[in-house]
Amino acid sequence: MEPREAYRELTDRGREIAYLSSLGSLAAWDQRTYIPKKGHAHRALAMATASRIIHQKATDPRIGELLAAVEGSPLMEDPDVAANVRAWRRDYDRATKVPESLAVEIAEAASRGESAWAELRKKNDWQGFVPYLKRNIELKKAYAEAVGYEEEVYDALLEDFEQGLRTRALVPLFAELKGPAVELVRRIKEAPNKPPVEILHRHYPKASQEAFILEVLPELGYDLEAGRLDETAHPFASRIHPGDVRITTRYFEDFFNAAFFGSVHEAGHAMYGQGLPEEHWGTPLGESVSLGVHESQSRMWENLVARSPEFWRRYLPRAREHFEALRDVSPEEFAFAVNEVRPSLIRVEADEVTYNLHILLRFELELALFRDELKVEDLPEAWDQKMEAYLGIRPRNYAEGVMQDVHWSFGAFGYFPTYTLGNIYAAQLFAAAERELGPLPPRFEAGEFAPLLSWLREKVHRHGRRFEPAELIAKASGEPPSTRYLLDYLSQKFEALYGLT
Amino acid sequence: MEPREAYRELTDRGREIAYLSSLGSLAAWDQRTYIPKKGHAHRALAMATASRIIHQKATDPRIGELLAAVEGSPLMEDPDVAANVRAWRRDYDRATKVPESLAVEIAEAASRGESAWAELRKKNDWQGFVPYLKRNIELKKAYAEAVGYEEEVYDALLEDFEQGLRTRALVPLFAELKGPAVELVRRIKEAPNKPPVEILHRHYPKASQEAFILEVLPELGYDLEAGRLDETAHPFASRIHPGDVRITTRYFEDFFNAAFFGSVHEAGHAMYGQGLPEEHWGTPLGESVSLGVHESQSRMWENLVARSPEFWRRYLPRAREHFEALRDVSPEEFAFAVNEVRPSLIRVEADEVTYNLHILLRFELELALFRDELKVEDLPEAWDQKMEAYLGIRPRNYAEGVMQDVHWSFGAFGYFPTYTLGNIYAAQLFAAAERELGPLPPRFEAGEFAPLLSWLREKVHRHGRRFEPAELIAKASGEPPSTRYLLDYLSQKFEALYGLT
Repeated sequence: MEPREAYRELTDRGREIAYLSSLGSLAAWDQRTYIPKKGHAHRALAMATASRIIHQKATDPRIGELLAAVEGSPLMEDPDVAANVRAWRRDYDRATKVPESLAVEIAEAASRGESAWAELRKKNDWQGFVPYLKRNIELKKAYAEAVGYEEEVYDALLEDFEQGLRTRALVPLFAELKGPAVELVRRIKEAPNKPPVEILHRHYPKASQEAFILEVLPELGYDLEAGRLDETAHPFASRIHPGDVRITTRYFEDFFNAAFFGSVHEAGHAMYGQGLPEEHWGTPLGESVSLGVHESQSRMWENLVARSPEFWRRYLPRAREHFEALRDVSPEEFAFAVNEVRPSLIRVEADEVTYNLHILLRFELELALFRDELKVEDLPEAWDQKMEAYLGIRPRNYAEGVMQDVHWSFGAFGYFPTYTLGNIYAAQLFAAAERELGPLPPRFEAGEFAPLLSWLREKVHRHGRRFEPAELIAKASGEPPSTRYLLDYLSQKFEALYGLT
Repeated sequence: MEPREAYRELTDRGREIAYLSSLGSLAAWDQRTYIPKKGHAHRALAMATASRIIHQKATDPRIGELLAAVEGSPLMEDPDVAANVRAWRRDYDRATKVPESLAVEIAEAASRGESAWAELRKKNDWQGFVPYLKRNIELKKAYAEAVGYEEEVYDALLEDFEQGLRTRALVPLFAELKGPAVELVRRIKEAPNKPPVEILHRHYPKASQEAFILEVLPELGYDLEAGRLDETAHPFASRIHPGDVRITTRYFEDFFNAAFFGSVHEAGHAMYGQGLPEEHWGTPLGESVSLGVHESQSRMWENLVARSPEFWRRYLPRAREHFEALRDVSPEEFAFAVNEVRPSLIRVEADEVTYNLHILLRFELELALFRDELKVEDLPEAWDQKMEAYLGIRPRNYAEGVMQDVHWSFGAFGYFPTYTLGNIYAAQLFAAAERELGPLPPRFEAGEFAPLLSWLREKVHRHGRRFEPAELIAKASGEPPSTRYLLDYLSQKFEALYGLT
């Protein structure tokens, strides 16, 4: 086969799969926003049908033949071709190594596990959940054996979410973080200053929240002509296709943070989606590189930008025009309030500092499970002990402890670490951007967000999957992933806010 | 191949196609409601991708083999199996008779023609439009030769929209309608009573219109838990899948009719969709039978129900709670206003009586074109002469004459007749329902719409594509399609309203 012809066919097939996926993404967005009540059963089947067709197309033996025709040909001297072919080969090999019977078993166990979890958690029924969890772990071990790994089972799981990441690299990275984070939480608990959090629980009318969000997001760089904001129960961002990257949020009239910071978070994801190179749509160069890098974008805009005191020096006066509740509030008071650090049991409600400890706990437990150093039966006690050790609090029941997250119920092991990787990457990228552009928070106060976004477009977004995540971070920031920048950022910011010395 | 096994595979394949189509329908709905501006280019390509995959699957030679394995087997004694296999066979043969190259040419000419039309109509440029129209006609003739026909080319085009309908049957049906309709329009023009149409152009706030519509539609029987109402530029109904049949509308604050009657019209389509048998989803027995029958449902609810004086005796007092503008208006005045008959140039704005004349005109011209009795160049003059003869008015330009409709620009010849067929079927079905249930308008005044809807569910909706359209109408009403009921309905209603004797 002529390599150029083969590459063209690979691209065409990639686009076909991408367009089918885009219809699946739209269906998922609709399922969580506008679908009528009685549409759910068929929607799930429609989406499963699309997934099955996509899987068939992605594992078609023809792909293997086409890849073989390009690999080793002079066409690989073109760096775009080489990057796409490498990524396609990696994906194709991983997908075709999993026997169809195992893939079906995993999907069914995931679906059953998630449904069971939703019911069992309500009843605080850990014993009922144990067999589902065991089944998921067993199947994921079989999956790891099928796709293969260099050193340990858990590597195969990480690889699904963060290409190239190995347990060997992740363990020391997270270990560096733990001591200082625990210590910072302890010091904050005893700090002289206390954030005026009552402010956040005043009355914030929903329509005003939406108007304020829609005023702020375009200034950050989220293009509303290539996106939109809708309401949902569990917020998410969805890249349907280039030119259509949507976000969702939920409103509480008695709590400011949820909709606003949630929307900025999702807009961070969406700006990454809007910044992916459209000319590579349908090929790996047009795709986001990993969950960790994706999370670095959302976290950066949510925390390093929108939770900075300088941000509120600009936006608090603007917010006052929307909210009566903010009449007597200063930018400094508000910025302190939205940065409250308080150990809590629930991950999704955690602040910037304690959040990473929630993740470290889950990572350590997952790793112990997959190294057979921990039995599923012993998970609740291990969970509670770690909560006590890291945050000084203990769950009163399973629902607010080991059963709080949906992830394990559908077999997503190796996923949690990407949240903290996102924080690590965010701080490291932000520091690198500041080295090139000068201090950024003063720019935020002046309403200048374009320099940061342009830098991210240039260093991160435009590359798609050209590099592995760690390589991308190293190229963008000048060094491999390191916890230094996150630790520096957290201690400087929170020591200043809380008056620690 | 074992017939039962073959039939099961046909069903599975049918469902797969139906689910893919449902994603296409959702994408089309979104494209006309919520899509962001920059999402359009990729959306069109995503939908084209889905269509191509659906076409491939629908024309897969395997379908032919599976059909052959069931046909002639004892399984065909099961009437459900026989009905599905007959419809599948008919669709498969038609689809596979069109060479791929011709199908592509038709699709491209349609797309180019529609784009050109949108621009040329603005400029009133008939000469510019001629080549596109000629190309569409030429390709549709080739299409007719490919799929085949018994008597004439136009039959092959009708067959696409109204299975089993032949020109030979349609010509006399429409001829019966023309004389009386022209005469009724003439008499109304000279009638003593004039409808108080000023009422309709008072101030109707959009939010109140929406609230009123959402109050009325569920009472008619449109299930909002299996549907929703959104705003769009060109209203439509969309059956995405069972349990999700959506409608759209558009609001004018200075004209009551558009949103209200438009919504009832679309809800009529949607109630048909909601009434199709879910257990047959993915097979012909779960599909609507034809455009004409679909239109009979929308027209019946819009005109025979919601434009009846009795309907407004119930709903005008309710409407007064929403609209200040209706304070001093009686149900009788309002019912007369919404039934104004006035010859106008634009089909989509036409009333119940003149509408059919707009259709007859188009049908006669289409037929003449495909019988080579009329040249494209002579179309505008022929159009204007017929407008003069049937409605007594002449277009001042092409845009409000021969170029007003989109249909011909994308090659949809044979489509227009289904609008008037819908009116004919609607009146005939309504009369049959009244023979069984007694006079219906008094029931409407009492808010009883369920008897009519149940009758339609039983006689029309639940059959899916079990019968050909004319056969379905005959079974439901006891006689073949006839214009008698439409003519009786129109003359009785409008003679009463306009005080004709």
